[in-house]
Amino acid sequence: MISQLIEKIQKTKAPVCVGLDPMLSYIPEHIVKRAFEEHGETLKGAAEAVWQFNKEIVDHTWDLIPAVKPQIAMYEQFGIEGLIVYKRTVDYCQEKGLVVIGDAKRGDIGSTSAAYASAHLGHVQVGGQKPAGFGCQFVTVNPYFGTDGVKPFVDICSQEDKGIFVLVKTSNPSSGEFQDRLFDGRPLYELVAEKVVEWGSLSMDGAYSNVGAVVGATYPQMSRTLRKLMPSTYFLVPGYGAQGGTAEDLKCCFNEDGLGAIVNSSRGIIAAYKQEKYAEFGPEHFAEASRQAVEDMVADINSVL
Amino acid sequence: MISQLIEKIQKTKAPVCVGLDPMLSYIPEHIVKRAFEEHGETLKGAAEAVWQFNKEIVDHTWDLIPAVKPQIAMYEQFGIEGLIVYKRTVDYCQEKGLVVIGDAKRGDIGSTSAAYASAHLGHVQVGGQKPAGFGCQFVTVNPYFGTDGVKPFVDICSQEDKGIFVLVKTSNPSSGEFQDRLFDGRPLYELVAEKVVEWGSLSMDGAYSNVGAVVGATYPQMSRTLRKLMPSTYFLVPGYGAQGGTAEDLKCCFNEDGLGAIVNSSRGIIAAYKQEKYAEFGPEHFAEASRQAVEDMVADINSVL
Repeated sequence: MISQLIEKIQKTKAPVCVGLDPMLSYIPEHIVKRAFEEHGETLKGAAEAVWQFNKEIVDHTWDLIPAVKPQIAMYEQFGIEGLIVYKRTVDYCQEKGLVVIGDAKRGDIGSTSAAYASAHLGHVQVGGQKPAGFGCQFVTVNPYFGTDGVKPFVDICSQEDKGIFVLVKTSNPSSGEFQDRLFDGRPLYELVAEKVVEWGSLSMDGAYSNVGAVVGATYPQMSRTLRKLMPSTYFLVPGYGAQGGTAEDLKCCFNEDGLGAIVNSSRGIIAAYKQEKYAEFGPEHFAEASRQAVEDMVADINSVL
Repeated sequence: MISQLIEKIQKTKAPVCVGLDPMLSYIPEHIVKRAFEEHGETLKGAAEAVWQFNKEIVDHTWDLIPAVKPQIAMYEQFGIEGLIVYKRTVDYCQEKGLVVIGDAKRGDIGSTSAAYASAHLGHVQVGGQKPAGFGCQFVTVNPYFGTDGVKPFVDICSQEDKGIFVLVKTSNPSSGEFQDRLFDGRPLYELVAEKVVEWGSLSMDGAYSNVGAVVGATYPQMSRTLRKLMPSTYFLVPGYGAQGGTAEDLKCCFNEDGLGAIVNSSRGIIAAYKQEKYAEFGPEHFAEASRQAVEDMVADINSVL
């Protein structure tokens, strides 16, 4: 699967993905109002607003980008109705030819992780049938349980040609509390990185592994070390833009072949029309603002590669 | 919320919770067959089988126990249909007066954790309304992101009288890969435990905090240390029974007041009829086997307290 993602990155010349993480506060009033008129101020009304918002952004950006990353929490907060729209968004993006990275950060003991892997990437045995739950191409995985908790995802990567990104160094301010603690002089995130390389060797797909890593844009020194430790691991890089990471910070996430990383931006793209820079578009043309923000982001990142 | 759970534990004299983690292979054939006849070998058929199975187990055990712990992964694997049954199970258990611990092991950067906290414990603002997504009383939380990723859950605990259990030391074989690594001679799980105490101090509810800890039954030496480190923290203890933990192993998870821990059993209860010990019940009376298994588990645990 990683080779398919790389092919799309090369075709679009855009090592970026759009984070479809809609908050109601990002959605222009005319969309929210219409959804509430139809379904009331209910979970269904909120989910409908999210769907209309997502669809318009995807319709205006799909040809520029290789992938999207919907953050499932933003849908889960609206309960079942939200998850129906999550699934609809996954399906719609796939119809548009986009690779979908389900940002779910799942992880548990082995048998439970196997259920999560089926849910988000694979298929589940139901009598003689094998339907799929959410059917993403990639999903993000939390490593706290160790190998037992990650291996079921790796197995599905190999069996069904899928991919994962395992949390190594996250982009948030308190990520260092545990991730940076030193064991014999080496931080926890490096120990996780070594395991990612080990797990990754079980599901190679060309020069890179189907087992990638989440490496935040906000800690460039650490990204540099991780890039060296994990030469065949693709990085999913959050934290660009709204969280403070710059293109220069990202440079060290890439290999010398210009590959090795895909950079996510969520708020900076989907709520672009709220920035002064894109204010001229106005709320009515929010998706055109998102398109412009994607073009600007791609140019910015390519300028340092 | 922890005081409500303790009250129920004292009333039932049962420091246990039943893990509603249904695999299709646990469900007696007559239930699966009926569900498939009605809905086909589909996600909906599978979910219907899970619901019928859960309902019968709850109907046969609710008066003996304070709480249930549905593992959301087992529902998520059946996609939207599975999650509808997860929600139905949560609601039904609450109607029966049970405390519901949603075993979701969520955790992410701050704004995303806030969405998960709303989804599983709290309410979400939709216009002038505040509907709830899944509305559990407790949810399990993964600490890998540090304080940013946990604090939004703690806030909801205080604001809406809810509770969480943060992963400290998990019950699976590879839990030591990261959790046992030593920093200056102290394992990671102890560092996490210290943070749990700190977070817990922000949401006390009587003698215990609404911020509990997941501490596996399978590592009694570690539980003993953790019990001392976290005197006001309630432990959710997985790993009893099918995963190998014995009542003697559990003893050190409790405080001298006989409180401080709630022990989960999933497979050992819900698939009891498959054990030789309860084979006489047969698949038709699987829920009576579960009732007997609960009674045996409660007696076993109380024998060491």
